[in-house]
Parts: sequence; structure tokens; C-alpha cells
Amino acid sequence: MKIELASSYGFCFGVKRAIKIAENAKDAVTIGPIIHNNDEINRLNKNFNVKTLEGISEIDGEKKAIIRTHGITKGDLAELKKSDIKVIDATCPFVTKPQQICEKMSKEGYDIVIFGDEKHPEIKGVKSYAIGKVFVVLEESELEGVKLAQKVAVISQTTRKVEKFMQIVNYLMLRVKEVRVFNTICNATFENQEAVKNLAVRADVMVVVGGKNSSNTKQLYLISKTACEDSYLVENELELERAWFEGKNLCGVSAGASTPDWIIQKVIDRLESFQI
Amino acid sequence: MKIELASSYGFCFGVKRAIKIAENAKDAVTIGPIIHNNDEINRLNKNFNVKTLEGISEIDGEKKAIIRTHGITKGDLAELKKSDIKVIDATCPFVTKPQQICEKMSKEGYDIVIFGDEKHPEIKGVKSYAIGKVFVVLEESELEGVKLAQKVAVISQTTRKVEKFMQIVNYLMLRVKEVRVFNTICNATFENQEAVKNLAVRADVMVVVGGKNSSNTKQLYLISKTACEDSYLVENELELERAWFEGKNLCGVSAGASTPDWIIQKVIDRLESFQI
Repeated sequence: MKIELASSYGFCFGVKRAIKIAENAKDAVTIGPIIHNNDEINRLNKNFNVKTLEGISEIDGEKKAIIRTHGITKGDLAELKKSDIKVIDATCPFVTKPQQICEKMSKEGYDIVIFGDEKHPEIKGVKSYAIGKVFVVLEESELEGVKLAQKVAVISQTTRKVEKFMQIVNYLMLRVKEVRVFNTICNATFENQEAVKNLAVRADVMVVVGGKNSSNTKQLYLISKTACEDSYLVENELELERAWFEGKNLCGVSAGASTPDWIIQKVIDRLESFQI
Repeated sequence: MKIELASSYGFCFGVKRAIKIAENAKDAVTIGPIIHNNDEINRLNKNFNVKTLEGISEIDGEKKAIIRTHGITKGDLAELKKSDIKVIDATCPFVTKPQQICEKMSKEGYDIVIFGDEKHPEIKGVKSYAIGKVFVVLEESELEGVKLAQKVAVISQTTRKVEKFMQIVNYLMLRVKEVRVFNTICNATFENQEAVKNLAVRADVMVVVGGKNSSNTKQLYLISKTACEDSYLVENELELERAWFEGKNLCGVSAGASTPDWIIQKVIDRLESFQI
């Protein structure tokens, strides 16, 4: 049986970069979980003594603080910088960008509209860079009745879908004279989805690796299942059953955005050990 | 029979303003027809000795030049200003705006996309203010394969429909990092359309006044006809027939964007003279 990885899978650029930064910052603390994967957080703790704090208030004499991929608020960053701790910025560059845009446009007198989830740490961070008015919405209807300046700058949470972003922009075009649109959507999630689809249509059997409570992993699994009936979602190599692969010629493998390569590698090793 | 004018009809703000300017500029010439209505142009010539030239090359010793509602190119304006002639600007302020935006954004390094008809005098004027790259399109497909900067400013011809403008903006959002949208659409045409519809549903009979070759007048007539079967399109009062109005209670009146008030007034006077 041939084993083939999807052309895009697992960690995105920003997460890979953050993990590398954490590995090079022994004995540091991260402000909030560096990524949403406990196995990986435990590995960083065990191998590099990198601990996870919930917020800056928990800092207790540590020397180095890592800012995670989603970024932190401007206020927290300022406080960190005032303290003696060394700040190591692992904010994804695709998140730093909307933070900078938010601050710059706000200074230039634009009202800011952020398309995203205001409870998400990325958006809490981005929003904190606004000086003037800022509105976080998931639907254009949330802007109805809201008093807006005639100049509005619009940015998006990096993981949102562009179709909805367009609807919000179109709505604003009818409301104000100038809409300054910054497409800050990152395509990594969608690239994984596209890749799993392309592989699943060719494969006899598919394995999607990731947390069963991870929404992006489940999404990948559903896309896979639609194209290839024999699709399996596993959290690690121990869940694989030899019987699934008997008589199969091509086994496709993909992984959710929070699944580290070493877990994927263990899955592949186990698949190869079946010698089918 | 009651006669009721649509709540919005005939000349828009910019045209009314231009006519007033021309009436106050005796013995002037206009660069291109000041509006697309020959009766009105003849009236201005007869009453105020305002002549219509095709372009600046036809100027022959005149003292005052009126720039018409649609505006002229930056080059023509510069040439006029260099000459001894007094320049009287009757460009509609809603057209001056996109000219200014085009120049400013172009200077700031944006590629310019203009949604409009490149043969239209308004667009020829607006386009001439670009310093860098400028693209005039009616469809987003015209931008396919075109190399664009990562910063694009988008403006619209004042009389275009916003739905199509949105499609072009949506397309650009997928292509470049920043889309700076200036909604330069003027709603005057659409206000006339909305008003004729609201009146026609209540009226027994409708009269739409305007040139039979005027596309916006024909559009008004069709909207009227859909809501009120007994709708008539006339160019002037002489075409009205008494029989059309017999037994009717409410006669609605509207007029195309190039129909002057004095023609509309003659139509109303004639309707009243029927004493129905």
C-alpha cells in the first residue's frame, strides 16, 4: 500500500515558526497556550522547560516571556516591556499585520470594523490597537443602527471565510463614503481543506490525524469522508486498526492545524509497520 | 383629474447648478454640450448667447469658457487656464470628487480601477487625473490577467449601479492586499426611478416627459408602464391627447434627467387645460 501525505496539512507557517521560537527559548514562559494542542505543550515543557501561563499576572520571576501565535493586547505587551522580563515575540506575522493596520488606520481617523469573533485571543489583541472607534462583528446586521464615520477601515480575523468578509464590505459600501479594505485572511486552513479533498478523491482509504474536539480537524475529516467513504479520524497511531487497510492500494494522510509533525510521523510509521 | 408630480424627477442637482451657472455667464462658450438636451441648449443660446463648442480647439477669441457637468480632462483644463479665457467650472461636485480621489490615490502609489464606460466624457475626465496605472472596466473579468499593485483604489462612474460595483470590489479583494473603495455613485437617477414607481402604482394614468432617444427616460417609462398600464412617453406638451385622460382621477407626471423644468411645466399647463 502506498502512503501519501496531502500536499498541505497540519501546522501552518505561523505555528511552525512559534514552536521553533519556543524550542530556542529554554526556561521561558508563554503568555497563554502557544498553540491549542496539549501533547505539544507538554513536549515543550518536558524537553525545553517552557511553561504555559494563563496571563501576565501569573509571571513570577521568570526571565523570558514568549508571546504566542495569536498575539496579546497592546496593554499587556506594554506592561511586559516595562518589566525586567525578556520578551520573545512569536506572534504570527499574519496577525501582527492586522494589529499594525488597526493602529495606523485608527490614528488616521478611520473607524475600524473587524470581521471576527470578539472572544478569540487574536481579535482581542488586534482590537486593542485601535485608538478610536472599533466594532467587532461576525454579521453585517450587527452594524445596523451603529453610527459610523464616513471613513471606515475593515480587517478580518485571519481564519475567517472571505465570502462573509465580502458581504460586510458590500454592506459598508452602502453606508459610508470610503471603505478601506485590508484582506488579512490567511489561506492556510483552506489550503489544508483543498489538499485533503484532492487526495481523498484518489485514495482508497484516508487517515486524518488530530484532536476529536478540534473543529478544523473534524472539518477536514468530513471533507475527506465525502470524497472517500473509508476515512478515519484518529488522535494518534494507537487508534489505527490493521483491518482498515487490507486490500487497499493508496492510503492518504492529512492532519488538523494543531497536530504536530511528530504525531503525524508516528502515524505514518505505524501504517508502514502493517506492511500492506 | 388630479395631477401629481413624482417626488423626484427631471434634472439632478448637478445639472440644475450647471444651467444656473450658464445663465449667469452671458456670451460664454461651453466645452462640449452642457447637458444632453437640445431644447435647453438652444434656449441658453437664444436667451443668454451661450454657445456650445465640441472641444477647446474650437475656441476663437471668446472671453468665458464653461466646463460642463461631466467635467473635462486635466490636460484640457490646464490648457484653458494657460490661455486668456476665463474658466467657469460647472463640473458637478459629484464628478469633481472622483477626479480628486483619482489624482490623490495615484500620487500615493495606488493603482486605480474605475468602474465605468471609458467612452463617457465623465470617465475620460476622471481617468485623466491618474498619474500611475489606471484601468477602466465595466466587468471584473476585464481585470483578469492584468498585473495589479498590492494597493488598489476603486472609484465608480456616478451613474452606475452599486451591485456591479460591489462585484468588482469583491473580485479585487481576492487579488490584492488593500482595496480602497470610494463610493462615488450618485443616487439621483435611482431616486427618479424609485419615485416614478411609487407614483405609478397609485395613478390611473402616467405621463413621462423626455427624449424618446434618452435611455434614462425610456427606463423611467418602462418602470411606469409596469406599474400603470396607461403610461405615455412624450417629448413635449404637443404630443398629449385629451382622450388618454378621460375618466381618470389621478395623473402622475415624471421626467427624464435631461428634461428641463420649463418643458415639464408646459406639459402640466396643457394637462390642466383639458379640464378633466
